[in-house]
Amino acid sequence: MKFFSDNAAPVHPRIWAAMQAADVADTAYDGDALSARLDDAFSELFGAPCAAIWVATGTAGNCLALSAMVPPHGGVVCHREAHIEMDEGGAPGFFLHGAKLLLADGDGAKLTPDTIRAVVDAIRPGVHQVQPHAISITQATECGRVYTAQEVGAIGALAKERGLGLHMDGARFANAIAHLGCAPAEVTVRAGVDALTFGCVKNGGMSAEAIVFFAPDLVDVVRYRRKRAGHLQSKGRYLAAQVLAMLDGDLWLDNARAANAAAQEIAAACGDRLIHPVEANELFVILSPAEAAALRAQGFDFYDWNAPIGAPGAARLVTSWCSPAQEVEALARAIAAL
Amino acid sequence: MKFFSDNAAPVHPRIWAAMQAADVADTAYDGDALSARLDDAFSELFGAPCAAIWVATGTAGNCLALSAMVPPHGGVVCHREAHIEMDEGGAPGFFLHGAKLLLADGDGAKLTPDTIRAVVDAIRPGVHQVQPHAISITQATECGRVYTAQEVGAIGALAKERGLGLHMDGARFANAIAHLGCAPAEVTVRAGVDALTFGCVKNGGMSAEAIVFFAPDLVDVVRYRRKRAGHLQSKGRYLAAQVLAMLDGDLWLDNARAANAAAQEIAAACGDRLIHPVEANELFVILSPAEAAALRAQGFDFYDWNAPIGAPGAARLVTSWCSPAQEVEALARAIAAL
Amino acid sequence: MKFFSDNAAPVHPRIWAAMQAADVADTAYDGDALSARLDDAFSELFGAPCAAIWVATGTAGNCLALSAMVPPHGGVVCHREAHIEMDEGGAPGFFLHGAKLLLADGDGAKLTPDTIRAVVDAIRPGVHQVQPHAISITQATECGRVYTAQEVGAIGALAKERGLGLHMDGARFANAIAHLGCAPAEVTVRAGVDALTFGCVKNGGMSAEAIVFFAPDLVDVVRYRRKRAGHLQSKGRYLAAQVLAMLDGDLWLDNARAANAAAQEIAAACGDRLIHPVEANELFVILSPAEAAALRAQGFDFYDWNAPIGAPGAARLVTSWCSPAQEVEALARAIAAL
Amino acid sequence: MKFFSDNAAPVHPRIWAAMQAADVADTAYDGDALSARLDDAFSELFGAPCAAIWVATGTAGNCLALSAMVPPHGGVVCHREAHIEMDEGGAPGFFLHGAKLLLADGDGAKLTPDTIRAVVDAIRPGVHQVQPHAISITQATECGRVYTAQEVGAIGALAKERGLGLHMDGARFANAIAHLGCAPAEVTVRAGVDALTFGCVKNGGMSAEAIVFFAPDLVDVVRYRRKRAGHLQSKGRYLAAQVLAMLDGDLWLDNARAANAAAQEIAAACGDRLIHPVEANELFVILSPAEAAALRAQGFDFYDWNAPIGAPGAARLVTSWCSPAQEVEALARAIAAL
Repeated sequence: MKFFSDNAAPVHPRIWAAMQAADVADTAYDGDALSARLDDAFSELFGAPCAAIWVATGTAGNCLALSAMVPPHGGVVCHREAHIEMDEGGAPGFFLHGAKLLLADGDGAKLTPDTIRAVVDAIRPGVHQVQPHAISITQATECGRVYTAQEVGAIGALAKERGLGLHMDGARFANAIAHLGCAPAEVTVRAGVDALTFGCVKNGGMSAEAIVFFAPDLVDVVRYRRKRAGHLQSKGRYLAAQVLAMLDGDLWLDNARAANAAAQEIAAACGDRLIHPVEANELFVILSPAEAAALRAQGFDFYDWNAPIGAPGAARLVTSWCSPAQEVEALARAIAAL
Repeated sequence: MKFFSDNAAPVHPRIWAAMQAADVADTAYDGDALSARLDDAFSELFGAPCAAIWVATGTAGNCLALSAMVPPHGGVVCHREAHIEMDEGGAPGFFLHGAKLLLADGDGAKLTPDTIRAVVDAIRPGVHQVQPHAISITQATECGRVYTAQEVGAIGALAKERGLGLHMDGARFANAIAHLGCAPAEVTVRAGVDALTFGCVKNGGMSAEAIVFFAPDLVDVVRYRRKRAGHLQSKGRYLAAQVLAMLDGDLWLDNARAANAAAQEIAAACGDRLIHPVEANELFVILSPAEAAALRAQGFDFYDWNAPIGAPGAARLVTSWCSPAQEVEALARAIAAL
Repeated sequence: MKFFSDNAAPVHPRIWAAMQAADVADTAYDGDALSARLDDAFSELFGAPCAAIWVATGTAGNCLALSAMVPPHGGVVCHREAHIEMDEGGAPGFFLHGAKLLLADGDGAKLTPDTIRAVVDAIRPGVHQVQPHAISITQATECGRVYTAQEVGAIGALAKERGLGLHMDGARFANAIAHLGCAPAEVTVRAGVDALTFGCVKNGGMSAEAIVFFAPDLVDVVRYRRKRAGHLQSKGRYLAAQVLAMLDGDLWLDNARAANAAAQEIAAACGDRLIHPVEANELFVILSPAEAAALRAQGFDFYDWNAPIGAPGAARLVTSWCSPAQEVEALARAIAAL
Repeated sequence: MKFFSDNAAPVHPRIWAAMQAADVADTAYDGDALSARLDDAFSELFGAPCAAIWVATGTAGNCLALSAMVPPHGGVVCHREAHIEMDEGGAPGFFLHGAKLLLADGDGAKLTPDTIRAVVDAIRPGVHQVQPHAISITQATECGRVYTAQEVGAIGALAKERGLGLHMDGARFANAIAHLGCAPAEVTVRAGVDALTFGCVKNGGMSAEAIVFFAPDLVDVVRYRRKRAGHLQSKGRYLAAQVLAMLDGDLWLDNARAANAAAQEIAAACGDRLIHPVEANELFVILSPAEAAALRAQGFDFYDWNAPIGAPGAARLVTSWCSPAQEVEALARAIAAL
């Protein structure tokens, strides 16, 4: 019973179907009919002109998006727990040619205007220190927290005031929107976001994410950067098909709602064990080594995680679009019984 | 009737089947059971210890392989028609951090020890000129030519003598082996090749190539570089499945033989129009603009190509694992009738 | 008797004097009073608003200038004999983060609109090939040839038409202007040049060159890049002093005239041996190995050089601001006597 | 009366004399007789085989030294106050092609084995996080503190145990050795240091630092990287002359002793105002805004600095090899009188 990552989940049947429908000879790279539909599909979703391209991984998506905003001598403000800082193997340093991540604080891996200002205002102007050129936030965050439209808007206003780009790592954007119940535009284009990495893989996709530019001009340079990074697949239609299928009939939201509901069911059994409020599909739970072992002995698979200071231990539990109801229920019961 | 690229062909049913068989939850990234089988599968194929990893594109495969051999201040000798020089959007400059491609000549886009020496010996030792660290050859070449075991061996011997790594871009390696009818080891590990980009996508795959290291230590750094380039997909099992299925029962050779046979059938109709001997699945054909238009009017789709000096025009025709017999026959007939 | 490089010459007394006059405590880096005068000094020289900064080497100057014009995924059209291609150890690849040099032809290492167009027009638009973003020319060229105002203007017009930046490597700009006898602006700002590497070291300086931007905005990013490249010296006033002294009373032109005159004196003795017309302070001379040995036996020091096809051998002879009259005369006599 | 930086001080007369003695034509770049003497000069100083090259700035020295130890996908452990992190404009990201600085703590900007382990042990092995390849420490530190031989040795032992390179930024190495009174080898080669940036500019030089490799093989790649970074000056003999003059007759130590003595004289007047013990030539002093203004009104020039939490304000005072005795005395008196 796997709760270690939504990355491990299989591919949704409608994604399979869409890929198979794309299995005809078509123009290579992104010259095919499906890739050509991405701009419109996202423009409709967000109610604003968008330029969108597919890419295979969230890491590539985040870094390519940022490459449109940050020169090699610049910096990106992000949370010190951000995926780009902690889990991408130095990819921002590669894609941005040595640009610097400028690390800020914030509860639940959420930046705030105050924590951003604390970083930015401490930087001396001039050439001796790396100057910020963009802010990157993660929605939902690495702690499973969700930014409200107001919170993103406040960061967007600060970004605008300081002349910084604003990128959103949306590896679990679907889970965030499912939680918020708002229009996707409210936490993105209307809140000042310039580029969004729109995650699909964790949410039932196989190998396609989208980068969505609300400042559509930014896509031009990213097309070159994508090819240059070896990310322009020659049979791109299979990636476009995945992304379009995800949007079609709001599959992305349905999948995320399922994952979130499973997380809530487990959360209800966790009580004081919860380190962060559960807003998406990740739970961070205080578990002693003995308790973790007991759960694992019952067949539950999950990662240990950094425990808060003073706590004996912690674990991360992740649900997915297809976490089996009986496994979820079993886990909730097992935790309650600890 | 599409003869413009093998990239445009659909995915082979056995590749689909293997991907669907992989559609169960498993460990993310390349921690899954299928990815773990790659080393053995290629070691068996080549009869020598290999380390092998998947990657989504040939561009990434070529550049990651070279990144294990060439420091940022070094150079790679390649043909001036090489894919890495002409068609990868500057990816070698990105992956190799500004290392230089050192361009050599050779008929049919084939390097020879002499043309390599002409480049290497003209470089003054010392820090004022970029020094070579590796050689990259393409098998089959960008002109559809195939290196014999002896030819690769002579280049391998030169590489060894000069302390250079030897990389083979095998985007159409299958077509080359199908043509040669030799053991794959003969033109690679036994001929001095250190790393091979083993192409699958043009040969019936969807989104997976393999990098095969005959100097297995080289893979260690490339694992880091792959992640850092955003090429470590989280659901890597679907890529591993494609590669394994390609090797299984020699599907890779069957597909290549089909493509090569189709090319031969068309070649037989081309006579003096052929610019290069047809050894793989690409034909470079002298066609006047009127002749090209006539073929297109009959529904044949292909790219114009650089014509030899003095020729009125030229075209590239590419067959694939699934070029329909009647379309191939029709094209042969149409050319013969020009 | 050294004729192998103007790099080997000592430092002019007025440069020494200026450096010593700068030997007082002042603000570090480029916050000093002398550095602050560079913009005005060059604006006056060129009769147009300039931004100018010092840098220690021509390599750094050329590459930093280009870094303001060329993104990492872009390319620079230059002659295949250009210093940035042949003699800078891959520095453009480093400073430009892997951008590509696009090599063009031309007699005497001079580009022409036609040879530039031949390169640029052969590049397919789109992401598969590196697109040009700038042109770099060398004044005087690596063959000692000088572009006229008309020639630069034609290239400048092409650059403008194609949306490309235009950089001039002026390692021997002084020699070129001394030859042309025109206003420096005529072959630069009025001819469409955006940035000039203004050489001083070969012309009697010690360790300072200037980058002059005729599009003054470009300097902003280069200030960051200079620091980031470790080229912002903390005692920058000694570099500024050199550059200002070079401009003061037209020392730069006096020195260049002296070097050019010495070259002409030798040239007059060379007759048919000259491979290129002598327009600056470099001579490329056909010499058989025996002749070269004979000159060396008389104490003349110089480099062998690539001979034209069919010629038995060649040499490069370089004069400097301080080539002793009797050594110059002796060399001329010795060549005449061969 | 300038106490804001030792960078602002003039050049020592013996450095001038050495540069002028080098003012003859010689082979360009580092082919001259003086550059050739650097290896021996440093080997003698450190009593061990050294390879040494000149470079114009400490930033270039630090980053080039690290480039021999750290691949683009690797990391460098350094203090979060380190010059390479705080004051080099992102140069490590440039020279190391995006490698990451891994920030550790420690009083007085000094790393300890414990603070290094805290960083290194928190990094998950594998490709998802950047792995450390080297440690960089500053001697004297950015807070004017000095590592003892024992302290460096403990770090050196840890570096060896973990397979990490050890670099020492010795911008104020002379001041540290003057303070310690030990053989230079004791805190470097015998303590496990692989490469030292040996500072001269702050200590009476003009434009030359040295990189000293105690693992002499490391210099080979750095020679290429230096050229590639535009740091191979064509008249390198003027840099070599500075470095050799600095070593000659222990000028480097005499100058540092003078600066340190001046710092001690001021320190004696500072009492509880001192934030860090004064061990080199920098003082960090608690000063209220009114007190700082009062000193400035008396003609003392210095930078404000980050004050400790709770303190009303702070300043940095730096002495140099030539701080005038009466100005030092005046400053001490003025502080005592506050």
